[in-house]
Amino acid sequence: VHGGAGALALHEVAEMAEQAQTPSGGPRRAGVQRACEAGWAILLQGGSALDAVAAAVVILEDDPVFNAGVGGALTAAGEVELDASLMEGGSLRCGAVAGVKDVRNPILLARAVLERSPHVLFAGAGASAFAREVGLPPVANTSLMTRAALARWKAARAEATKGSGHGTVGAVARDARGHLAAGTSTGGMMLKPAGRVGDSPLIGCGTYADDALAAVSCTGHGERIIQLTLARAVAGAVGAGASAQAAAEEGIRQLGARVQGEGGVIVIGPSGPPALVHNAPAMARAWVTPEGSVAVAL
Amino acid sequence: VHGGAGALALHEVAEMAEQAQTPSGGPRRAGVQRACEAGWAILLQGGSALDAVAAAVVILEDDPVFNAGVGGALTAAGEVELDASLMEGGSLRCGAVAGVKDVRNPILLARAVLERSPHVLFAGAGASAFAREVGLPPVANTSLMTRAALARWKAARAEATKGSGHGTVGAVARDARGHLAAGTSTGGMMLKPAGRVGDSPLIGCGTYADDALAAVSCTGHGERIIQLTLARAVAGAVGAGASAQAAAEEGIRQLGARVQGEGGVIVIGPSGPPALVHNAPAMARAWVTPEGSVAVAL
Repeated sequence: VHGGAGALALHEVAEMAEQAQTPSGGPRRAGVQRACEAGWAILLQGGSALDAVAAAVVILEDDPVFNAGVGGALTAAGEVELDASLMEGGSLRCGAVAGVKDVRNPILLARAVLERSPHVLFAGAGASAFAREVGLPPVANTSLMTRAALARWKAARAEATKGSGHGTVGAVARDARGHLAAGTSTGGMMLKPAGRVGDSPLIGCGTYADDALAAVSCTGHGERIIQLTLARAVAGAVGAGASAQAAAEEGIRQLGARVQGEGGVIVIGPSGPPALVHNAPAMARAWVTPEGSVAVAL
Repeated sequence: VHGGAGALALHEVAEMAEQAQTPSGGPRRAGVQRACEAGWAILLQGGSALDAVAAAVVILEDDPVFNAGVGGALTAAGEVELDASLMEGGSLRCGAVAGVKDVRNPILLARAVLERSPHVLFAGAGASAFAREVGLPPVANTSLMTRAALARWKAARAEATKGSGHGTVGAVARDARGHLAAGTSTGGMMLKPAGRVGDSPLIGCGTYADDALAAVSCTGHGERIIQLTLARAVAGAVGAGASAQAAAEEGIRQLGARVQGEGGVIVIGPSGPPALVHNAPAMARAWVTPEGSVAVAL
């Protein structure tokens, strides 16, 4: 799992470094650890990669420290607009939503699109209408707004700087039957203009899973990730014979070299350990080691 | 250029076959020929691949026989909602819009996103707001509605069948400097629910261009094309050494075999002739032969 990578403000880097010194390691560290443990528990019980990814992402969406679900970054208009996508590598089924303002867990709405709709992506009011159709209750936009997100938004607006939307979350998993899944969820770029769609809800950009290739979730500067269709490119490299680690490193190298982008990627292939690579100052992340324990890094 | 491929109704196949017997070859044939000639004229004068693609797509959008711009398919709510995307292979710049109801030429709005916005994709009202910002005048939704599209919509609604949205348009080009570009524009699936986004406005799905790989525009069943990120997959195959023809054939083979999808793809690589391949009953298409003349097929 990842808890986002992207251009942090200097004070955010300092804050994260300080928190990392505390016994708990700070809330980001605790958050990715909890999400990874929840996903791993499902896999240990023989659950599906899709269930594991969804469970991990729900925990990160519910955790106000990440820019996804509760705690999502505010748009130029001062609202929370959430994006998410989910893909299953065995069936190639996928579901995604963009610009949702009234659903607490967009990854569950993406899952409903995957399982219950002939379509792949719903945007805006159409996504909300679909949520009601499948029984996801509406929530007030203010219930997704945290005091911290509001304070960051006010500060960014005062400085007229666009925030990075640091804190996108994502997960990839391989289950006991060898099936892969990937999911990504975000509040998007802070102060984003209405209707702007980033990489997170786009299949092949923020998220991709194909049992024949790999499962990938990306985070960082969305427009740069879209230009490279980074998730599909990294998955394709694994399919062409690269290790998850080599494919992730090459993907992030291209992100920097070809489009001057900053971000991170997590990858798991049909075999072997996962890879978690970034070129941003930090990426909160957790993974299961070959020995079966959960490791965490910022 | 292509004028769409997808599951045609039987009467549409019959109609196209009948028209093809007439001296002019029917309006679809005339439309793709005119668009291809316009793009080729720009390339012959040393113009850019991006200009050629945009000019060809504008002609197809303005032609009421195609499901793009004027003549776009109607949604479940009885409106025209247009999608388009455009990408330049040298810079990897791209722009796209989804669900636009008040712009006559969505490909020109996609171009404005490419050239004048730090973002890649705008959906819905945000896309309209951006159109006003860049000076594209609002048009009435009814001005995009043709009698034929309205009649098809009424017939489909009476039968409660979802239309295929046959008639998506697209173009790919390579200019004298070796730069590539691709663009795609559509009214989407007839009777589509509000907010549904198909492959056409998604970079890597309906459209992709990278001078190091190829330029690709897709048409057909959008959800199936998204699952394979077909444009990026075909471009990647050219980058890995396949000819445009071999890459297109393999892409369409996978579309049928892996996700039971119907559609078509047009491809041009850094060298060699273009490829135009489909597994649907028909795909209106035109291209420039190695001898420099425009060829047309349905």
